[in-house]
Amino acid sequence: MLIHLSSWPEIEARLKTNKTVIVPIGSNEQHGPTGLLGTDWLCPEIIAHAAERQDDGLVIAPTFNIGMAQHHLAFAGTISLRPSTFMAAISDWVSSLTRHGFERIYFLNGHGGNVATIEATFAEIYAEWSFLEERAPFALKLVNWWDLPGVHALCSSIFPTGHGMHATPSEIAVTQAAYPDRIKTADYSPKIAPVGPIRDALDYRARFPDGRIGSDPAQASPEKGQRIIDAAVPALIKDVAAFTNEVVPD
Amino acid sequence: MLIHLSSWPEIEARLKTNKTVIVPIGSNEQHGPTGLLGTDWLCPEIIAHAAERQDDGLVIAPTFNIGMAQHHLAFAGTISLRPSTFMAAISDWVSSLTRHGFERIYFLNGHGGNVATIEATFAEIYAEWSFLEERAPFALKLVNWWDLPGVHALCSSIFPTGHGMHATPSEIAVTQAAYPDRIKTADYSPKIAPVGPIRDALDYRARFPDGRIGSDPAQASPEKGQRIIDAAVPALIKDVAAFTNEVVPD
Amino acid sequence: MLIHLSSWPEIEARLKTNKTVIVPIGSNEQHGPTGLLGTDWLCPEIIAHAAERQDDGLVIAPTFNIGMAQHHLAFAGTISLRPSTFMAAISDWVSSLTRHGFERIYFLNGHGGNVATIEATFAEIYAEWSFLEERAPFALKLVNWWDLPGVHALCSSIFPTGHGMHATPSEIAVTQAAYPDRIKTADYSPKIAPVGPIRDALDYRARFPDGRIGSDPAQASPEKGQRIIDAAVPALIKDVAAFTNEVVPD
Amino acid sequence: MLIHLSSWPEIEARLKTNKTVIVPIGSNEQHGPTGLLGTDWLCPEIIAHAAERQDDGLVIAPTFNIGMAQHHLAFAGTISLRPSTFMAAISDWVSSLTRHGFERIYFLNGHGGNVATIEATFAEIYAEWSFLEERAPFALKLVNWWDLPGVHALCSSIFPTGHGMHATPSEIAVTQAAYPDRIKTADYSPKIAPVGPIRDALDYRARFPDGRIGSDPAQASPEKGQRIIDAAVPALIKDVAAFTNEVVPD
Amino acid sequence: MLIHLSSWPEIEARLKTNKTVIVPIGSNEQHGPTGLLGTDWLCPEIIAHAAERQDDGLVIAPTFNIGMAQHHLAFAGTISLRPSTFMAAISDWVSSLTRHGFERIYFLNGHGGNVATIEATFAEIYAEWSFLEERAPFALKLVNWWDLPGVHALCSSIFPTGHGMHATPSEIAVTQAAYPDRIKTADYSPKIAPVGPIRDALDYRARFPDGRIGSDPAQASPEKGQRIIDAAVPALIKDVAAFTNEVVPD
Amino acid sequence: MLIHLSSWPEIEARLKTNKTVIVPIGSNEQHGPTGLLGTDWLCPEIIAHAAERQDDGLVIAPTFNIGMAQHHLAFAGTISLRPSTFMAAISDWVSSLTRHGFERIYFLNGHGGNVATIEATFAEIYAEWSFLEERAPFALKLVNWWDLPGVHALCSSIFPTGHGMHATPSEIAVTQAAYPDRIKTADYSPKIAPVGPIRDALDYRARFPDGRIGSDPAQASPEKGQRIIDAAVPALIKDVAAFTNEVVPD
Repeated sequence: MLIHLSSWPEIEARLKTNKTVIVPIGSNEQHGPTGLLGTDWLCPEIIAHAAERQDDGLVIAPTFNIGMAQHHLAFAGTISLRPSTFMAAISDWVSSLTRHGFERIYFLNGHGGNVATIEATFAEIYAEWSFLEERAPFALKLVNWWDLPGVHALCSSIFPTGHGMHATPSEIAVTQAAYPDRIKTADYSPKIAPVGPIRDALDYRARFPDGRIGSDPAQASPEKGQRIIDAAVPALIKDVAAFTNEVVPD
Repeated sequence: MLIHLSSWPEIEARLKTNKTVIVPIGSNEQHGPTGLLGTDWLCPEIIAHAAERQDDGLVIAPTFNIGMAQHHLAFAGTISLRPSTFMAAISDWVSSLTRHGFERIYFLNGHGGNVATIEATFAEIYAEWSFLEERAPFALKLVNWWDLPGVHALCSSIFPTGHGMHATPSEIAVTQAAYPDRIKTADYSPKIAPVGPIRDALDYRARFPDGRIGSDPAQASPEKGQRIIDAAVPALIKDVAAFTNEVVPD
Repeated sequence: MLIHLSSWPEIEARLKTNKTVIVPIGSNEQHGPTGLLGTDWLCPEIIAHAAERQDDGLVIAPTFNIGMAQHHLAFAGTISLRPSTFMAAISDWVSSLTRHGFERIYFLNGHGGNVATIEATFAEIYAEWSFLEERAPFALKLVNWWDLPGVHALCSSIFPTGHGMHATPSEIAVTQAAYPDRIKTADYSPKIAPVGPIRDALDYRARFPDGRIGSDPAQASPEKGQRIIDAAVPALIKDVAAFTNEVVPD
Repeated sequence: MLIHLSSWPEIEARLKTNKTVIVPIGSNEQHGPTGLLGTDWLCPEIIAHAAERQDDGLVIAPTFNIGMAQHHLAFAGTISLRPSTFMAAISDWVSSLTRHGFERIYFLNGHGGNVATIEATFAEIYAEWSFLEERAPFALKLVNWWDLPGVHALCSSIFPTGHGMHATPSEIAVTQAAYPDRIKTADYSPKIAPVGPIRDALDYRARFPDGRIGSDPAQASPEKGQRIIDAAVPALIKDVAAFTNEVVPD
Repeated sequence: MLIHLSSWPEIEARLKTNKTVIVPIGSNEQHGPTGLLGTDWLCPEIIAHAAERQDDGLVIAPTFNIGMAQHHLAFAGTISLRPSTFMAAISDWVSSLTRHGFERIYFLNGHGGNVATIEATFAEIYAEWSFLEERAPFALKLVNWWDLPGVHALCSSIFPTGHGMHATPSEIAVTQAAYPDRIKTADYSPKIAPVGPIRDALDYRARFPDGRIGSDPAQASPEKGQRIIDAAVPALIKDVAAFTNEVVPD
Repeated sequence: MLIHLSSWPEIEARLKTNKTVIVPIGSNEQHGPTGLLGTDWLCPEIIAHAAERQDDGLVIAPTFNIGMAQHHLAFAGTISLRPSTFMAAISDWVSSLTRHGFERIYFLNGHGGNVATIEATFAEIYAEWSFLEERAPFALKLVNWWDLPGVHALCSSIFPTGHGMHATPSEIAVTQAAYPDRIKTADYSPKIAPVGPIRDALDYRARFPDGRIGSDPAQASPEKGQRIIDAAVPALIKDVAAFTNEVVPD
């Protein structure tokens, strides 16, 4: 069940039996010479929507498509929220969803650079309850799609070298599987991109001139992407079920 | 050119000749018993993407899909930003896009409830420059898709009665044209919904029990929606061109 | 009853029978070569105080004299709040007044540039209740004095041409009626000022060199101003009564 | 020269010779059983406007009429900004005034409860420059009207007992001189109000049941108020001149 | 009892009989050519810890070591919070401590420049309750260590001239008593530093080239510092007891 | 060189040759039945100060002693900043230190719960530069003391079982080495604490009744703590040197 393609009575009815919602969350940012700018929000959306097609008991929120990408701002097309803005926006999403009765919110994340801010936001949200001496009536969970059980191992086996950390062949492949008419090519030089620390945008561009970090995206293919999706979907369904069924102590 | 399906070198190249970007912006909120929760962000996205298919010189940002919908929060599935959060997020989008060299940002809006906050945000952004005694190196424009030249007149002619203000047959029809497999039906009672002031969420639900304001969405059809889209697309292309070519005084 | 010239026991006593308060709100900003910088807060204050003299059952708050005028900052004497500051300040006024038991707050506005921010503030205030699933124990209303029933038509009939949008002969006339010893004159050139979009302060000054937009304030006179006031006062009294007596659905 | 009754060309012209502006600032809050709610903003306004009538070289901004009065909120008619809101608003006033070229901003204050927040705001404003390693191109000064040279001594001599700290006979008298038709009376019990610490609003009302602190306002009279005004006006003119002429080290 | 050297069960047990906590609070900022940068947080810490050694019934929080020192930022080693940040941080400390059941929080302050912001923070905190029409379940108190009964008189008698306002011989002496191996010397020129207003950092450095204001710290000695500490400790113990035992009206 | 025990001329002189500063940062929060509430800020302080005693070329800032500990608020003595407050405070520290010329700021962290917020803060700080298209003139680095090269391995070898994640025998041991007179004992039950997710404070207390997570702190001893300190000190000195000498690309 995709929230944005449903009516409110449909969501209201579903809430009687399912109080877990999945929020695909990512970033719109450069992904090297060939990667789509939308890669990081497209990947979790692709996986979540594929999961919903297999199990329409899942409730999927609209995709949170802009995240924390300040370090990519020296590359055209990147759109970034400041961490403080990102926190406020996530908080309002959570306030909206829990207001309707969702008790478990599962963020399926597609951007490593989002992790710190999302976790800080969870703490900001929980802090309201912690200061009040009340228990939060909901639980929040963050999972990167590549950390779904089995997915990272699969990616490593498909791409034993040149996987890297940004514009990885895994994520490029996932978008190729979903958008085969948008596959772009380039002569990567060097074949495997350098690695290093991440700081501000101009420092980033000096270290990583074409945007990639440690990766060789030329290895990507739609077929490999489909294999990753096919592994991620059941892993997601299972992980969400475990979250839904988690026993909370009194 | 859809930013999220492009690579950064493609956007960088395009910026040499086109410094205008269109941002579809809307809301995810109840649209009566049958309207899609995504209606208000789907409509500007549908129109903007259709325009891009006709004129690939247009640059379209990802869709800003969550807006200011506090008054709809008593209906399940609505997700709202507080106005202050919305302002911060729009500001960061603008900072990101202008950082790359976009000089004109055209927000194609799908939600009347967004208008005040978006305009306040423009003032907040401009104020930074106004206090500094510097001229903003960009211009911002907000246009509701139904205010594109000719569109409102068309909608009125198609739906002379029961158009209303929320969950209108026009917007429902536009989504029906784009998502024909998601058309929902209901027995509306009353046929034409009541009207009244908009305040907080529970007040809203008391006044407008099924979510509609003044509308009879039963009149919608995919064909009518397509007519509206077909009128909106050239109007958008022309309006964007006028914005791009506007002469700014020294 | 003017709050600032009353004692707290007087207000406390009045609250037993009247829970509506009028807040004159405006801006301190340039009004062309001859208009008073205070025009936009003086006009609603003049009208509200005149109404109170006719009907001392009205409760009038102090005038909120600084609003959102970032676009006028290139003209000396303008004082502007950022929209975010304006929102915080209005929120605190509302929190204060509703804390005492006022249930209806009627903002009589004198500046078009305030409208978006005031409406966004209303949404920010209501959102607190909407997220909490509680009903706000008060209602907020914004009315521009020129939109009081009958006033706009009167202004149009007095000034069929050259009314314009900023430094209008209507508002200049209202201040002339109240401050006849402060009437200033100038040779306007052009007689009717240009029109155009409103952006940042330097852009504004480039488009509108003497500050006016579309207006010919030379037509103003104290007598015309008094006619406008005389029309606005009963319209205000009636509109406030309607707001007070509005039936709110359960 | 009162800014709000001037036109922008008049202010622009004056700035060539005078770069100091006086901002009357106060609060709208209970002042005991008989004091006007506006007392704290009326007093500095009365004194500043009287000074301007004697020396029209002075530039007087509109009155900042709402300040920090959270502790008075248990008494009807009080309107308070939170300190953080107050800080933002003062900052925007300063940004506006210094943008036009005012280099010295003199806040003539009428409310002791404002002092800490105004001083914190000055530090907040200066900090922007201090972090940047730049010198602020303006100076800010806060003076309570009763601290103008000679005024406190006069008040003590007129009211040797029962002056107190809130709803003092001095401030009541100043408003009586200016608004003689608004004089109110009551049987004060006790004659001299108690003293104690100031905390939240309900604590305040428990300690100071009729709102006064340490004062016997029955001693006030319009004549005494006029004597205070007559002493404050020349002291203000002289103090502002000293501020204007202060030599700033390189 | 020092909180940071205790376990949570120890604090929980103590809260059954003592609900007052002392927070040493200061600043890390230049103190002239010889003063320690930590002077302003070390002094209240020294006094509070000495008091705790005499009366282990006292509960002492960790030292709040960074305050509002924007005016000292032109001198290396100074670390300052903006007032707005300082306010947020103090608020969170108060929320944490009152959450555990502390009902009285006594800030022992070592920096005059903190006073305005701390008092504004108290108002910000109380305002939450004042707007809600609820009574704050705690009381906050700010005392500068030199204002403890008898201390200021002692300092004046030890240093009848050249005490000044910043880098005073009193505070230097207190740190010398506690950190005798960190005593530094210099040829002060002039012997007694100048006085003047405090604004931004570069203005400060222009007025007070070596950082001192009005003081001759050469008079400090560890012995004098110990005398001051010995006077402050019993005064603190007594003042805290009075605060704890204060009768609050209903 | 400890900043707080130095004078500003000493820091100014040192900045000519050393532009790296170490900030010990932690949290004041419960550490099980026996751990000191200050453990998380004491550990990095102990290690940093020991390193400074070995290599007085190091510049050590005062300890940032309160961090993000909302999940521990159900245990008395815990003091927590909200993530948003923590971010503001860290930002001001960084602004202060870089204002003086420090180009590398090394945060030596003692609390896992701080990591997300500190990293989000780095992004918030860098974002200012990234949006401006300027390069930040400084670099920020976060290192948990247990992640210093070799330290984690040593801790694992000393405590092969029952190390856990909170109130670990490692951190308890480090504080025992530094504060041997503050060693506390208890009968832990169970011997090794449970593990689980971290959410709000009451959820935490329900899952981890005595505060520990996965640990058996009974294994701690001052001798073991000293071994850890002795390993951490040279690792810190070396890691800081590498950071200082890092070559930044143009």
